[in-house]
Amino acid sequence: MWETVFKDIDSYFDEMVHIRRYLHQHPELSFQETETAKYIANQYEELGIPYRANVGGNGVVAKLEGGKPGKTIALRADFDALPIQDEKDVPYKSTVPGVMHACGHDGHTAALLCLAKALLPYKDEIPGTIVFLHQHAEEFTPGGAKPMIEDGALEGVDVVFGTHLWISTEVGTIETAPEAFFAGADAFEITIQGKGGHGAIPHQTKDSILIASQLVTSLQQIVSRKIDPLQSAVVTVGTFEAGKAFNVIADTAKITGTVRTFGQDVQETVIKEMENQIKGACTAHEADYDFQYNRGYPPIINHKEEAQLVLDAASQTPGVEKAQFVSPVMTGEDFSYYLLEKPGAYYFTGAQKEGHVYAHHHPKFDFDERALPIAAKTLFSSFLEYQNKHQ
Amino acid sequence: MWETVFKDIDSYFDEMVHIRRYLHQHPELSFQETETAKYIANQYEELGIPYRANVGGNGVVAKLEGGKPGKTIALRADFDALPIQDEKDVPYKSTVPGVMHACGHDGHTAALLCLAKALLPYKDEIPGTIVFLHQHAEEFTPGGAKPMIEDGALEGVDVVFGTHLWISTEVGTIETAPEAFFAGADAFEITIQGKGGHGAIPHQTKDSILIASQLVTSLQQIVSRKIDPLQSAVVTVGTFEAGKAFNVIADTAKITGTVRTFGQDVQETVIKEMENQIKGACTAHEADYDFQYNRGYPPIINHKEEAQLVLDAASQTPGVEKAQFVSPVMTGEDFSYYLLEKPGAYYFTGAQKEGHVYAHHHPKFDFDERALPIAAKTLFSSFLEYQNKHQ
Amino acid sequence: MWETVFKDIDSYFDEMVHIRRYLHQHPELSFQETETAKYIANQYEELGIPYRANVGGNGVVAKLEGGKPGKTIALRADFDALPIQDEKDVPYKSTVPGVMHACGHDGHTAALLCLAKALLPYKDEIPGTIVFLHQHAEEFTPGGAKPMIEDGALEGVDVVFGTHLWISTEVGTIETAPEAFFAGADAFEITIQGKGGHGAIPHQTKDSILIASQLVTSLQQIVSRKIDPLQSAVVTVGTFEAGKAFNVIADTAKITGTVRTFGQDVQETVIKEMENQIKGACTAHEADYDFQYNRGYPPIINHKEEAQLVLDAASQTPGVEKAQFVSPVMTGEDFSYYLLEKPGAYYFTGAQKEGHVYAHHHPKFDFDERALPIAAKTLFSSFLEYQNKHQ
Amino acid sequence: MWETVFKDIDSYFDEMVHIRRYLHQHPELSFQETETAKYIANQYEELGIPYRANVGGNGVVAKLEGGKPGKTIALRADFDALPIQDEKDVPYKSTVPGVMHACGHDGHTAALLCLAKALLPYKDEIPGTIVFLHQHAEEFTPGGAKPMIEDGALEGVDVVFGTHLWISTEVGTIETAPEAFFAGADAFEITIQGKGGHGAIPHQTKDSILIASQLVTSLQQIVSRKIDPLQSAVVTVGTFEAGKAFNVIADTAKITGTVRTFGQDVQETVIKEMENQIKGACTAHEADYDFQYNRGYPPIINHKEEAQLVLDAASQTPGVEKAQFVSPVMTGEDFSYYLLEKPGAYYFTGAQKEGHVYAHHHPKFDFDERALPIAAKTLFSSFLEYQNKHQ
Repeated sequence: MWETVFKDIDSYFDEMVHIRRYLHQHPELSFQETETAKYIANQYEELGIPYRANVGGNGVVAKLEGGKPGKTIALRADFDALPIQDEKDVPYKSTVPGVMHACGHDGHTAALLCLAKALLPYKDEIPGTIVFLHQHAEEFTPGGAKPMIEDGALEGVDVVFGTHLWISTEVGTIETAPEAFFAGADAFEITIQGKGGHGAIPHQTKDSILIASQLVTSLQQIVSRKIDPLQSAVVTVGTFEAGKAFNVIADTAKITGTVRTFGQDVQETVIKEMENQIKGACTAHEADYDFQYNRGYPPIINHKEEAQLVLDAASQTPGVEKAQFVSPVMTGEDFSYYLLEKPGAYYFTGAQKEGHVYAHHHPKFDFDERALPIAAKTLFSSFLEYQNKHQ
Repeated sequence: MWETVFKDIDSYFDEMVHIRRYLHQHPELSFQETETAKYIANQYEELGIPYRANVGGNGVVAKLEGGKPGKTIALRADFDALPIQDEKDVPYKSTVPGVMHACGHDGHTAALLCLAKALLPYKDEIPGTIVFLHQHAEEFTPGGAKPMIEDGALEGVDVVFGTHLWISTEVGTIETAPEAFFAGADAFEITIQGKGGHGAIPHQTKDSILIASQLVTSLQQIVSRKIDPLQSAVVTVGTFEAGKAFNVIADTAKITGTVRTFGQDVQETVIKEMENQIKGACTAHEADYDFQYNRGYPPIINHKEEAQLVLDAASQTPGVEKAQFVSPVMTGEDFSYYLLEKPGAYYFTGAQKEGHVYAHHHPKFDFDERALPIAAKTLFSSFLEYQNKHQ
Repeated sequence: MWETVFKDIDSYFDEMVHIRRYLHQHPELSFQETETAKYIANQYEELGIPYRANVGGNGVVAKLEGGKPGKTIALRADFDALPIQDEKDVPYKSTVPGVMHACGHDGHTAALLCLAKALLPYKDEIPGTIVFLHQHAEEFTPGGAKPMIEDGALEGVDVVFGTHLWISTEVGTIETAPEAFFAGADAFEITIQGKGGHGAIPHQTKDSILIASQLVTSLQQIVSRKIDPLQSAVVTVGTFEAGKAFNVIADTAKITGTVRTFGQDVQETVIKEMENQIKGACTAHEADYDFQYNRGYPPIINHKEEAQLVLDAASQTPGVEKAQFVSPVMTGEDFSYYLLEKPGAYYFTGAQKEGHVYAHHHPKFDFDERALPIAAKTLFSSFLEYQNKHQ
Repeated sequence: MWETVFKDIDSYFDEMVHIRRYLHQHPELSFQETETAKYIANQYEELGIPYRANVGGNGVVAKLEGGKPGKTIALRADFDALPIQDEKDVPYKSTVPGVMHACGHDGHTAALLCLAKALLPYKDEIPGTIVFLHQHAEEFTPGGAKPMIEDGALEGVDVVFGTHLWISTEVGTIETAPEAFFAGADAFEITIQGKGGHGAIPHQTKDSILIASQLVTSLQQIVSRKIDPLQSAVVTVGTFEAGKAFNVIADTAKITGTVRTFGQDVQETVIKEMENQIKGACTAHEADYDFQYNRGYPPIINHKEEAQLVLDAASQTPGVEKAQFVSPVMTGEDFSYYLLEKPGAYYFTGAQKEGHVYAHHHPKFDFDERALPIAAKTLFSSFLEYQNKHQ
């Protein structure tokens, strides 16, 4: 029977493209996606599938209870866009200046909505319950996942699956990692308070540019000396701003940056060692500092069994040619919050567009829409495999 | 007889204050001082002292030929103002928004003009010739001195004297240095061209902030290791700008700064070693750079004999209580160009205003106007002493 | 039948202990293990198992051809000791001053010799051939594995297995990694040639201590910025020697260190970036350098299938309670050379001695001898499993 | 009359050479110069000039009271040698292995002794008193000057003069400085206490080599940023020793060095800022340190009037062709202690040997002996000039 379902999902290809392109033309920034949320809610309204809107903000949670006994499985798609000007030359280009679906969330939403449509006729045959998690605000901390969970989105849920269309992976390939998959992504801001003065009279000053420069070079020692070489960590300084005149010693220097890690131990080590290095640099010049460290999304740590299950399910899904474990990525995602609450796994659905080389978040980002039904089918096959395994 | 002249100069006190305050209310920026130049020219016109306007730009050069044989001695006063908003609360406050005589050039001009007025009656008794050098554009490189010299301002001149009203020295005190007096002041701009990228993927980038930070710390090695400890040099980085987002590795980093030295040898060493350090920092990361080094005014190196002569003359001048050698200052002045062409000396005329602590170039800068006749009298006594010594 | 063999191996426990302790009392340094080699050869002589001595140096290779058809499988044990003074207080303490089996190679040898003894009676039933690789000189580059291979030790061999008694793992536990297991371990030596001089006259010198110090700090940037954060690399400076007098600027500075990586790509990146950093530091001071980089053992990269096979085999071996994948270690081993030639896997045999905390290479190192028969049995079960899989 | 004295001094040339060469062949290390002291004492004994031996150690102080009223003037010559192997190929080469008069103190002594001899006949005509200060142990802190002063060497003395034969100045030239002449020379020793460990496991260590390297680069910031650019200071690290094995992270790192300054303010700033930088470097790694700073000789600060007096006297002395002020030198001398107690001046007597380029403290050091009578005569002419000025 399920083979028929896969074919039905494939038959929704045009609809997926239609929805995706509509959303692509009407992107909304994180935490401002009210129209997109209404659009999603309307679809479930029309389908007659019960849903709850405004979950933890703009989130929408729909529930399809199957006619057979089984587990409750949540499938997640995010739907916010980015503050990027669309530079593609296509008919479905963004109509909103400076806002763009440059990461593929439009596709995630289209795939999940059409999965709901395709499954509805099979309601009575379906074991357990499917929870459709339409999440807002993935792109911007503190994200939509956390408030949605706090607002009950995972109540009664046994396991969570989610996928990201992935531009550097070929269509037909499914990838995940057995444990760490996406890094934790934090932000920091350091202000060095020196003492300004005439550029020709350094000995009466505390040269904040020198102190901050010393700090930038010393921060390298954290990854090189303080982190287990078998662990991953990144400490990047992204901005450095100081001084107004070439001939005046700057009072203050400000640097901002990001930290990426795969676990709390490493994260805490980085924070502690950063503070040590900042203290050290300031001590050397009797300067002061302000250190703001903002913990972002935790890392996505897949649950081993569910990650293996996704690959097993995918390898039996029509349209999937390869299903494999890959190395984790250093970027962040708030899917991590679901996995802190429930078992589950996140995975990539290959969506590389031939001859198209623009990365996620690039103003010319686009993906191969043939990936949409594959995303929908693998979410469903993961659902099925889980039900089979947990009868 | 000259005692009478000194008294006559003193009697011009009110006129000096009047002129100074008029100029103070009508400041003009460097290279834009057309009205000030006209004002000065008019004064000589009225006095019937021959002058040349538009010398090397807005410069005005007047000549008073004495009735006795003697040397030709130039006395210099600069007359441009600064792009600073006057924040003083006085009746003679600047009337031009954002422009202010915050360095005392209004006073220099008032003193020199009134010296001409006071000396005119003694024309026949005066030995040699007095050249009144009214110079524009001292505050902004490449300055007015150089083009004025190129336009013949020093033709026939034997020696040049000049003074600066000095706020950190008491009224009645004259100070100079036997040799190096003001530092050479240069500017530089370094752009590090790295390769930007995702903040979580450093190995695909060349981190321009790190390279520039490394450079800032390494530049310290020039003064500490490459310059003769008995020489003076300053290498200051005044601004550091790089990066737009905390989580993106910056493509380029730009730093600007200033170099101060007292001689070409040290200056050339600094430039060569800066290029070495920049090359070193970029070599380490296979990055590129652009290095702009703009030589500013050369240092003021007084001629020993003339410097001593200024002190000797000053110590016999009514109103001067102390005349002494002091350490040089690290700031720059384009009086240096005159001393590269002719013998001469530059000196400070103490002008500290009691209870007033605002430095040169401060929005509340002001000076004690009782210093004006002292400036005029010491210029004249230096003139006399030189004539005596070179009969 | 094989169950009987496992029991027979267990029955050689006393003999294993006896051999191990004899070797422990008579340790020999790498490349000098002539007596140990004779001891081993004698055992095979007595057993009547054909062997070849002096293989690639002091290596001994014995071959037991089974009566059944099958693959040829090499099992490796190393037998050299370390230049460490034995500080244990036991009857079997080293009798050679300054030389000690502080890593467990005595145990490896004892286990492999007794495995040969135990298997001899089953010769006719054994499928394929067992090659007993007794390797000299593992502790000291360039190691014994490479010359033994060059001298034909792997001729006709289909697969290689080897194990290391491991002090931080409990007896009864077998551990390996699916791919990278031991790091590649290289050595480097950098000499900075500056220009010495009087400590008070730095500007006439090129301060080699400063240049080398700058280099040590800059080398940190390789791991922090130039290596994929998902890869492992270590760059350690272990020694720094420069200068003879506190008041003289040192002509040359010498640093030595080690690099650890798990793959040639990362290794080559480290070497290239080290050269860049050295060039950068020297360019900044117009100094010269000498950079010697000595590639040590390559990393042990297990073959996935064989690594899995080891775990599968181990988990069915009497005495093994746990068999699992673990993270790789940053230390080096020349077993890697065998795996560059043939499929195979290296693994840990847990040998933690209760209440004993002294690490490998510690003067008080010792292990739990109950691990010896487990090492022998798991080597044999890996042999069997491979034969089963490749019939 | 004094012209005759100058001629008499010249007539002692052979004797000066004789004494100098005798001492050159029999050098003694600082604080061990007992034979040299006896040799000197014997000379005064033979002359019948009253003297005191064992002054503050091996010092010898003789007094020639003139027959006329006048001031008491001390003339100083030091007499210790250096731990250097004489590599010259001359008949008067050192006979003591590893010990050598490589700085010219043999010459100082010969000149002063012969001055006493030459003056003795004029005793009755001489105004005031000449104190011959033969000082031991100049080359090795804490030096001989201080204990000699404490032992009364300057009692009753009005002024002190001394000279150093100077290899980079031509014979016939006398040089001094009006104020700062020789730098203060201090020594320091810094031990960084990190935490050692395996070279492949940096995160369990505190890498003392990295911390000390960071410190060496940061120490540069003291001279470049913390010292008035118009002042002189040198901070040199002369030795760096750490680590025993290339693959082990070093527990401790030790650096030693020297600091040169011309005044206590700058000296104190350097010490304070060194401690700040050490604290900073250690704070960054939670490491400990030991910082030993040993104040050496203070700077020689000549007294202005006496320095001028030396030049005035020298320019009237037969054999002197040039007498001038020069820049100070960064080296140290314990003549400074005399000038902290009494007025006076120290000066160079040019002693450059034609075609000979070996600096002071070089194993091939030598000087032109024609400088000896010039040293004696200028000491005496300074004596005379002082008496004239202070009648």
